[in-house]
Amino acid sequence: MFEAAEVGSAVSKEEFEAWLPQLRVDLVNAQYDLREADFPVLVILVGDDRPGVSEAVNRLNEWMDARYVQTRVFGAPTDEQLQHPRFWRYWGALPGRGELAIYTGDWVLGTIGERLWDVIDEKEFERRIRHMERFEQALSDAGALVVKLWLHLPKKEFKKRVKKVRKNGEDGSRLDAIDLRLFDAYDEVLPLAEHTLRKTDAGGSPWQIVESTDARHRDLTLATAILEALRTRLEQPPPPDPPPAAAEPSVRTPAATVLTGVDLEASLPRPEYQKERDALQARLRRLTLRAREEGVSSVLVLEGWDAAGKGGVIRRLSQAMDVQDYRIVPVGAPSEEELRHHYLWRFWRQIPRRGRMHIFDRSWYGRVLVERVEKLARESEWRRAYAEINDFEEQLVEEGFVLAKFWLHIDPDEQSHRFQEREHTPYKKYKITGEDYRNRARWESYEQAIHDMVTRTSSELAPWQLVPATDKRFARVEVLRTVCDRLSRRLGEE
Amino acid sequence: MFEAAEVGSAVSKEEFEAWLPQLRVDLVNAQYDLREADFPVLVILVGDDRPGVSEAVNRLNEWMDARYVQTRVFGAPTDEQLQHPRFWRYWGALPGRGELAIYTGDWVLGTIGERLWDVIDEKEFERRIRHMERFEQALSDAGALVVKLWLHLPKKEFKKRVKKVRKNGEDGSRLDAIDLRLFDAYDEVLPLAEHTLRKTDAGGSPWQIVESTDARHRDLTLATAILEALRTRLEQPPPPDPPPAAAEPSVRTPAATVLTGVDLEASLPRPEYQKERDALQARLRRLTLRAREEGVSSVLVLEGWDAAGKGGVIRRLSQAMDVQDYRIVPVGAPSEEELRHHYLWRFWRQIPRRGRMHIFDRSWYGRVLVERVEKLARESEWRRAYAEINDFEEQLVEEGFVLAKFWLHIDPDEQSHRFQEREHTPYKKYKITGEDYRNRARWESYEQAIHDMVTRTSSELAPWQLVPATDKRFARVEVLRTVCDRLSRRLGEE
Repeated sequence: MFEAAEVGSAVSKEEFEAWLPQLRVDLVNAQYDLREADFPVLVILVGDDRPGVSEAVNRLNEWMDARYVQTRVFGAPTDEQLQHPRFWRYWGALPGRGELAIYTGDWVLGTIGERLWDVIDEKEFERRIRHMERFEQALSDAGALVVKLWLHLPKKEFKKRVKKVRKNGEDGSRLDAIDLRLFDAYDEVLPLAEHTLRKTDAGGSPWQIVESTDARHRDLTLATAILEALRTRLEQPPPPDPPPAAAEPSVRTPAATVLTGVDLEASLPRPEYQKERDALQARLRRLTLRAREEGVSSVLVLEGWDAAGKGGVIRRLSQAMDVQDYRIVPVGAPSEEELRHHYLWRFWRQIPRRGRMHIFDRSWYGRVLVERVEKLARESEWRRAYAEINDFEEQLVEEGFVLAKFWLHIDPDEQSHRFQEREHTPYKKYKITGEDYRNRARWESYEQAIHDMVTRTSSELAPWQLVPATDKRFARVEVLRTVCDRLSRRLGEE
Repeated sequence: MFEAAEVGSAVSKEEFEAWLPQLRVDLVNAQYDLREADFPVLVILVGDDRPGVSEAVNRLNEWMDARYVQTRVFGAPTDEQLQHPRFWRYWGALPGRGELAIYTGDWVLGTIGERLWDVIDEKEFERRIRHMERFEQALSDAGALVVKLWLHLPKKEFKKRVKKVRKNGEDGSRLDAIDLRLFDAYDEVLPLAEHTLRKTDAGGSPWQIVESTDARHRDLTLATAILEALRTRLEQPPPPDPPPAAAEPSVRTPAATVLTGVDLEASLPRPEYQKERDALQARLRRLTLRAREEGVSSVLVLEGWDAAGKGGVIRRLSQAMDVQDYRIVPVGAPSEEELRHHYLWRFWRQIPRRGRMHIFDRSWYGRVLVERVEKLARESEWRRAYAEINDFEEQLVEEGFVLAKFWLHIDPDEQSHRFQEREHTPYKKYKITGEDYRNRARWESYEQAIHDMVTRTSSELAPWQLVPATDKRFARVEVLRTVCDRLSRRLGEE
């Protein structure tokens, strides 16, 4: 894999100076064109030559219009980042449409180093690689241009530099202690790097390996690679919507959906309700205090038919807790800024820090529910979303989050009944809108979408709970109990 | 001040239950109305009764539609927050227009506690109070509704509760160690609180002190206070644009402006330039590495006429530094989200963490330059901005930031000349737009605005540097040198 980048490629000073002026003009022009384009560009620039990477990033900033380059140097995670899942910082820093970001520092190499020095085991190593791959895939799928560049320093050259530093001290060179350690393990690093690169070498965004022996060659090659990728993408319209993969399970209306089995008669008399509610709320309070102490985060997803009673359920949960321990995240139509990013971006930003609970009132499942049914997302987009959501949730669970997902179920008659009731509610803004009735007419399409959602995204890691909600008391207690049970299982014996 | 909240106010269960249903309906309706209104609501809810505050916030979340209440509990600052100026977290969490946030936790009481236990001295105490006052004032001035509520527990009642805890242990009560310490210092806490409340009791947002002996009285009073403030504001149009204060220095076109004195002939021959630039860049690199180690942050503001050469100056700065040490913040028209907040909000969010430099390519001074001249801001708004900016910059400098502000100056002929040159530049998007010529026609209005800006915002803390930029080499070296000198002064001998 690295052989082609060990041939001693170099560019003479004359050649360099002949190329550079036009290259810079072209780069800046491409940047300006990008600002009016509707896709983001992510340049991942890493490599075994760490000082070379740093120099090259600076050089790119110099050649391009640095105002429109977002350089993200991922170093050792900050306390804030450590309080969140590993990929949180990578998601949060993503460029929007028309923007370009360079990711450098600890993207691939940090993980390779940790594996090398046995900080993480084989399984964790593979897990991270898989998530990197899916991260890049999700971005490419959504139309981002992902350019991945790896700077490779041949062993002979590396040795020469290390020798010099060991003789003269670190001064004058940019090799640091980590580089020296990397060099000593060179023969182990390369296979790990090769493995990682191969595993993340997806069709949409292959790695380009650049020899970094000669700085002029390195910088010209990098800049040209970025320019060419940008130009190609700017000139060519994005590929047409891919047809659903053949392996994709066909979607047809089943005679019965997952909702058919929900016992809509389930109910709970008021006295029992009050007793159970009070006991569960007290239990929830104790559990969230422990979750705070032990740094266990929770994500609750509340989905359900309009008027199914999500608000009431959420209130019974929040009542029980200390305000510093939870946040309610209402999810509506995305903002202008959110629309410029991958649809999961805004949810990643709302992931709680350690020890807290975020309650999502509607969620990322909008992609495969309302956006599917109302055709706000293309078919390829919502079909892709199942896997993207599974990967997202998998990361939360793997990192120790409690994740609970609820669908509050009522039938169309009950919904009609509640809509009518709302017409007389003193909360004037609860009044029924035209949209509510329209949604009502699409009940069957929604039922199909819910069926597919549960089929595709309910797993042992992140099961869906379908909650009968004809009787509000029953639904509230059911959700309270499930949340308590999940927390309790995660925290160990109460 | 606290006497009226020591009279043993209480509400019977019957009274409470008679009031509550309508109060909740009214609260929720007011919330819904707010969502369509164009002002933000900030409820500051703190007090000497810390457990009471926590209970009350939870109660408000229960009574209101919790989805539309952003509860911000400020506890001990996180590592991320410690890396930024003290008020950074308060600015970052502000609600936008149509939103409501509750600030609780460490707003006033933390500072009182630190003064009480001599963590901070008198001067720092007064400094913080002054910034709190200005923070609230800036929000009110910009149209925010700020409701400030202080929960007060009379000493007798406090004593009773403390006694109980000391007898039975902390279990069953919510008084914690801090509360016990506060109680022991009760007679010192109250005067400090009184002092703070009085100093921050500005006309637009006075403090309301609520007795918290009786929980029903407390919660009803709080909710009613919030409801009344909201309703009044929703029903009444905002007050008309206040006339400029009489004390305001009159703005007239002086025969000579601050720009008249700038020596536009200043120049630097190429050989000297190259020598000085290289030396200064090497020096800047050394200084930024030290700044990183010592955690010294810098904010550079680059302002100047169109085509004055800001981009070139910025490039000469960034070339010298390691990419992890700086960020360029290009400032353009505000986004939809930014427009929903105070105009300083977006700049507060871009303040660098410790050890880093952020270079602002245009800045918050847009308020008193383009927004003033192009009438994008009302007169009262840009006039207010001088003091707001001074307060903002004062905070940075007080917290150890290096702050350097540059105006790159050229004359109208030079600008015309550069515009014409750009017509032939290979960077196609640099082409002159109609707007550039329009700005050109307003040269005098801009000159007046620049004059006022320098007059009002150049101080020994944060001086403006007017840089002759007819000769680009001269300007670049001048800025490089100033930045180095400031860093060097801050870091001590090189």
